Amino acid sequence: MNRLSTDPVALFEAARDGHRLALARLLSMIERGGQEARTLGAHTFSQAGAAHTVGMTGAPGSGKSTLSAALATVVRSLDQRMAILAVDPSSPFTGGAILGDRVRMQDHVTDEAIYIRSMATRGHLGGLSLATPQAIRVLDALGWPWILVETVGVGQIEVDIAGATDTTVVVVNPGWGDAIQANKAGLMEIADIFVINKSDRKGADDTRRDLQQMLELSSLGEWEPPIVMTVGTDGEGAERLWATIEEHRTYLQRTGELVSRRRNRIKVEVSEILKRSLEAQVQSVLKSPRQAELQEKLDNGEIDPYVAVDRLLRTDGSD
Amino acid sequence: MNRLSTDPVALFEAARDGHRLALARLLSMIERGGQEARTLGAHTFSQAGAAHTVGMTGAPGSGKSTLSAALATVVRSLDQRMAILAVDPSSPFTGGAILGDRVRMQDHVTDEAIYIRSMATRGHLGGLSLATPQAIRVLDALGWPWILVETVGVGQIEVDIAGATDTTVVVVNPGWGDAIQANKAGLMEIADIFVINKSDRKGADDTRRDLQQMLELSSLGEWEPPIVMTVGTDGEGAERLWATIEEHRTYLQRTGELVSRRRNRIKVEVSEILKRSLEAQVQSVLKSPRQAELQEKLDNGEIDPYVAVDRLLRTDGSD
Repeated sequence: MNRLSTDPVALFEAARDGHRLALARLLSMIERGGQEARTLGAHTFSQAGAAHTVGMTGAPGSGKSTLSAALATVVRSLDQRMAILAVDPSSPFTGGAILGDRVRMQDHVTDEAIYIRSMATRGHLGGLSLATPQAIRVLDALGWPWILVETVGVGQIEVDIAGATDTTVVVVNPGWGDAIQANKAGLMEIADIFVINKSDRKGADDTRRDLQQMLELSSLGEWEPPIVMTVGTDGEGAERLWATIEEHRTYLQRTGELVSRRRNRIKVEVSEILKRSLEAQVQSVLKSPRQAELQEKLDNGEIDPYVAVDRLLRTDGSD
Repeated sequence: MNRLSTDPVALFEAARDGHRLALARLLSMIERGGQEARTLGAHTFSQAGAAHTVGMTGAPGSGKSTLSAALATVVRSLDQRMAILAVDPSSPFTGGAILGDRVRMQDHVTDEAIYIRSMATRGHLGGLSLATPQAIRVLDALGWPWILVETVGVGQIEVDIAGATDTTVVVVNPGWGDAIQANKAGLMEIADIFVINKSDRKGADDTRRDLQQMLELSSLGEWEPPIVMTVGTDGEGAERLWATIEEHRTYLQRTGELVSRRRNRIKVEVSEILKRSLEAQVQSVLKSPRQAELQEKLDNGEIDPYVAVDRLLRTDGSD
């Protein structure tokens, strides 16, 4: 296939036939947003739902990418397939860190069983928290059974993105402050599984104890987040982590929590889209000719700011 | 006057006749928000504009209230009148700090030339940045020639509130970090006058030099923010500060910047009100029966989240 269509649905069909370049273009389409992304979203929404999605988050440098690569090796050995989305909310374009990670993961890049892609915002800040669920749906609808979403950093956007998956893995490292940090950043609330990566370093047991104590203080449901010790660089603990992820999936399916979590996520997504679309309205209203007209009345003291807003929002054009 | 009307305009007339209790009720009305506040806002908007407003901000404990009291003494000695609004965005109700400050300022509370009032949000977070300009307009329309708005803290809301005045005074203390902090918090951009309060303490000269250097690095207009050294507790430097505030007012009037600043502030206020009113729309839309209907269609995969939002925002009720 030399010429790829630019039509979202045609591209989707090409990707389903196994064209990796088509898939890459679909994800770029999602990153860009706009009408094509919407068409694609509408096309994939009802076809998605079979994949199990795993979010992996933690501070920069905690070794998430190395761990993802180790998990990819496990997945391969089990004759499974997995797509990995590396999301970097801190960088508007694919930055050095993710690029470096991709190089490190290159064992897998030519692998039919593993797909790796980094995502960045091309548009406005925070766009990733809307683009990520759409990208997940594309991969899901294309039949990837496992989708791993790796996010850099520990801010609110990262928590939102990581929380938009079925199973959330929070990665920390040995060191007293790390566990505390996870708590502060709100990761404690979204973690289904904790990983202490680089667990061959000093302080791993202390960190485990700290985490354990925090978990005991939190009021927990039936699922008690396990703590898995890993050394990503040599794959130690990766099989155990994968088994824990599968256990969590089984738990979610058995209890019906998978359905309720997904339903809730859709609600959050709707509310997020609603906010964005109203924000866009504010911007367009503020640039309308009506605004210039009203500004004069405001300057003359004829109307006050609240009346001005009422009139700006009135769509019938009356004064 | 034993019985005060609850009608905003009647209360306003009573306040104009000098009833302090009526004024206090007007400001409570503004704090509560809602229809009465809007009526009052519309009534006072065209009557305001004669007062010069001064914002004073800085970290907690920097001595803003003591300095306000010292300025009040200067104002009195000049046979002038001044209203002081102490705004605390961090506390939903009038907290200990402001209450303590009010006690410290009690020399002035029975004084016809000085009016002191603390403002707190009764309603939603951030409401103060909309309530403060309204409170200022009430005081302005009642004929207070000087209005000092003192805000606690150095966050974005404080910067917004302090920036909503004609002259902004930023208070720091001797100590290396304080000046840096002022820069970080965005106070550098809004400061018309810097005050180093508690300037009898060690390090005052260093702080002055730090500030001076930062000011030189910023690209400045015609007005170069002066640095005034004060000791609020014994009134040292308060007269000099007052003279500097008057100089700034003269500068603003002479250059026409007063008019353009005020016009710009109204724009910011309109945009802020617009945002709030659209946020309220989001909330009500999400609670509509329509949302429940659409949720079912989302669950069945009949529509995707973007289509759901389109339908939620459609007011004609069509599908």
